[in-house]
Amino acid sequence: MTDLEYMKLAYGLAAKGKGKASPNPMVGAVLVKGNSVVSEGWHRRCGGAHAEIEALKKAGKKACGATLYVTLEPCFHFGRTPPCVGAVVESGVKRVVVGMKDPNPLTAGKSIARLRRSGIEVTCGLLGQELKKFNEVFIKYITQNMPFVVVKTAQTLDGKIATRTGHSQWITSKKSREYGHKLRGDFDAILVGIQTVLKDNPRLNASRVSKKLKKIVLDSSLCVSSNARLFQQVDPSDCIIATTRKANAKKIDRMRRQGVQVIVCPLKEGRVHMKWLMEELAKKKISSVLIEGGGQVIGSALKEKVVDKMFTFIAPKIVGDAQARVSVDGLSPEIVGQCVGLKDIQIKQISQDVLIEGYVKYTYVKGVKSCFVDFDK
Amino acid sequence: MTDLEYMKLAYGLAAKGKGKASPNPMVGAVLVKGNSVVSEGWHRRCGGAHAEIEALKKAGKKACGATLYVTLEPCFHFGRTPPCVGAVVESGVKRVVVGMKDPNPLTAGKSIARLRRSGIEVTCGLLGQELKKFNEVFIKYITQNMPFVVVKTAQTLDGKIATRTGHSQWITSKKSREYGHKLRGDFDAILVGIQTVLKDNPRLNASRVSKKLKKIVLDSSLCVSSNARLFQQVDPSDCIIATTRKANAKKIDRMRRQGVQVIVCPLKEGRVHMKWLMEELAKKKISSVLIEGGGQVIGSALKEKVVDKMFTFIAPKIVGDAQARVSVDGLSPEIVGQCVGLKDIQIKQISQDVLIEGYVKYTYVKGVKSCFVDFDK
Repeated sequence: MTDLEYMKLAYGLAAKGKGKASPNPMVGAVLVKGNSVVSEGWHRRCGGAHAEIEALKKAGKKACGATLYVTLEPCFHFGRTPPCVGAVVESGVKRVVVGMKDPNPLTAGKSIARLRRSGIEVTCGLLGQELKKFNEVFIKYITQNMPFVVVKTAQTLDGKIATRTGHSQWITSKKSREYGHKLRGDFDAILVGIQTVLKDNPRLNASRVSKKLKKIVLDSSLCVSSNARLFQQVDPSDCIIATTRKANAKKIDRMRRQGVQVIVCPLKEGRVHMKWLMEELAKKKISSVLIEGGGQVIGSALKEKVVDKMFTFIAPKIVGDAQARVSVDGLSPEIVGQCVGLKDIQIKQISQDVLIEGYVKYTYVKGVKSCFVDFDK
Repeated sequence: MTDLEYMKLAYGLAAKGKGKASPNPMVGAVLVKGNSVVSEGWHRRCGGAHAEIEALKKAGKKACGATLYVTLEPCFHFGRTPPCVGAVVESGVKRVVVGMKDPNPLTAGKSIARLRRSGIEVTCGLLGQELKKFNEVFIKYITQNMPFVVVKTAQTLDGKIATRTGHSQWITSKKSREYGHKLRGDFDAILVGIQTVLKDNPRLNASRVSKKLKKIVLDSSLCVSSNARLFQQVDPSDCIIATTRKANAKKIDRMRRQGVQVIVCPLKEGRVHMKWLMEELAKKKISSVLIEGGGQVIGSALKEKVVDKMFTFIAPKIVGDAQARVSVDGLSPEIVGQCVGLKDIQIKQISQDVLIEGYVKYTYVKGVKSCFVDFDK
């Protein structure tokens, strides 16, 4: 087997941490000696052993003289666990093949340098592009102290999420809705606006129950009822209400006593200051947020340039009514060049629906800087 | 070669008539004797020889004892040319393989019966499903005396065709616009609303100049200027203005004197009666119409159930503004089940844009009959 093939093996192991490792990166490791795999490891959950440590422990003395394939540069810093680079040096491996450099400023190449200083041969960058996309959430979170934000809409061909009366059940097919539900499991938190809560009273649960999902409601005037379904059958501290000084102070206290997290955010144009909130969520170790609507919330998020990616589920239906509810509102471009753009488009057909995925590019207007992590660099 | 392979050859010949044969069907024919092709023919243009006649003429006496593969049942009636069935019988072919029965009520199986009565072996239905789709325009036109109507929109991901100021250049990519332009060549006529003419002043030309394209403007109050670009460099009689009794009678006369066709249509909800107009266009031998907008015109067409198919070009951009111009307007469903649906969805990626094609199904609400030709029957 070649270096690339062993790295793909490590990549596959890393993927087992999907939805569980966050806010840590997903990492996989394979230890190889004389063309056979000695041991494997992956980062199973935040707080657990790092991938390379798991592999080295399993191997014991067999690690001596082996080659370590690891998808991400071993860490250089103390976190929840001691730095891995020391353990790698002590293990006696003679060569380390690294998928991509750790974007964490606390490591960022320091471990690779240390390994080389210790006489270990290091190859870096195998599957680098794929791994950067694979760990896009971690890269944004660790380099910008902001969560990776994805917007999901389920709309008709003409961009409507409900009729003029607000009726929306169902725009997309059962299969699309199931797909959207599973998607939630990939995120640390789901975010919706208070209008969505008042109208649909959603549970905001994920299909995969392997980890706790935070539920965030944007509610500038604190209108949410403590009987709302989203509070049911969950630890109240997993519910976060983002409100503003427009909220009733007594209601804030009451909700906090119930254990709900209430964040009082600054106002921006009469609404919750989205960028401020996202920074606050990153401090709470929320590395990824899925925004599910409504149109005004998505519009605010795009306006404040916090969105990285969009999932648009399009049902082959036409509402054909300018008074029906739109998927995105609150922006007001005068010319086409001021619109928000998407790039690296991917298209999937889900029964009769179409899913269009793309990364937000705010740089559509010249001179406007993108908040999106550019993976090409 | 098998029957199916010869029929595919005939199908390929038929396709050469695309955009030229209308309002006649596209037909191809191959004459085969002892495993070799004797001659070929296709319907090159309306008024020209039918495919089977062309093939038979080329073959002369060699037709005797041969097998004729023809995509459509030979005609039984006098049209611009005499009935083909007689010529086929006289040619001395011993077998005829027919792709699909002629949907024209004047033939509709009569020729097949006559061939059989004359002792010729007939096989029918080879490639039938493909040929029905291939000749969908002709089938609707000849069985319903209505043109096959396709709607084309070029919109953002959120269903907008222009910003709030009306700016729309350009929503979709150059490649998509070229694709849309070429599409025009497949139709007998292009239809737009007066608002589109006043705003964009389009030429409404097609890329392929092989045939004359009629230009139709819906203009209930006759606001169009005779200086509009669409009147330039064309025979005025190829321009059709569909107006109503709201129009100034003197202006109607003036335009008619210029050679422009002015059709005074009945009113429906203050607008041109779309269904009445389509029937009128069919009488003028217009078998296919491409509606290019704006939103109100498309809405009217869907409301009056005259649309068969939709081409939606979606650019990966978001306007995000409820006040921006919508791709379809004028419908007012209260529940999702009342929306217009599309079926048999096909998806194409055109550079970064997505093209979604689908057939309109008005039967989305139970009990509402579809005007769409159901090819499954």
